[in-house]
Amino acid sequence: MAKPPFPAELVDLLTKPNPAVMATVRADGTPVTVATWYLLEDDGRILLNLSATRKRLDHLRRDPRISLTVLDEASWYRHLSMQGTVIKLEDDPDLAGIDRLAMHYNGRPYGNRHAARVNAWMDVESYHYWGE
Amino acid sequence: MAKPPFPAELVDLLTKPNPAVMATVRADGTPVTVATWYLLEDDGRILLNLSATRKRLDHLRRDPRISLTVLDEASWYRHLSMQGTVIKLEDDPDLAGIDRLAMHYNGRPYGNRHAARVNAWMDVESYHYWGE
Repeated sequence: MAKPPFPAELVDLLTKPNPAVMATVRADGTPVTVATWYLLEDDGRILLNLSATRKRLDHLRRDPRISLTVLDEASWYRHLSMQGTVIKLEDDPDLAGIDRLAMHYNGRPYGNRHAARVNAWMDVESYHYWGE
Repeated sequence: MAKPPFPAELVDLLTKPNPAVMATVRADGTPVTVATWYLLEDDGRILLNLSATRKRLDHLRRDPRISLTVLDEASWYRHLSMQGTVIKLEDDPDLAGIDRLAMHYNGRPYGNRHAARVNAWMDVESYHYWGE
């Protein structure tokens, strides 16, 4: 496993709106994966945004350890897996966070303006990259 | 969360060689994700195949709980996340297992004929599907 900061090739991969899957753990230790949007911040942290009503948020509040795999949409045999910790959870009452993600992925603000959303910032502690 | 068997729409999704990400947990409870090939078996179980040298295999031997998210390559806003247990780990000395996966994904046998590989069958206990 390598440590951040990411080399330029991986910053490039992470800057694109690629498909990704995150994993958290339930209270009983079961891993739970789900597809997710992500956004690489300037400080190297990764913004995720969760529904305030999802159990996943309870998992993260109890155990902030998280893993994220990003697949290169152009060729998903290139993929980057990161382990880390959610260091900040913050309500997103004006949807500014989910709008940033929606603009990045879809080029327009998030569709559901009544959604209750929460921003989560992942601090990446280690990663492994598989190229072609 | 729904329970198997899968409806026809999801059998169709799972029968295709789609990108997927699995998560296991380390001894310290950390979730670890990685991109993976998978193959839906006739009995509804899911075949995965791991390198015999990967720590991931140690994780699975210690804790067989696993989560798998499959993204629809045609439109990865459709995705299926499954939780379950690896109920069988079996050495793959003649590479028959990894060849089944390689044929499914690449249309040719696995490239590295000296690889030490292990088959893992996942029993799916529950799943959640996000459509469009």
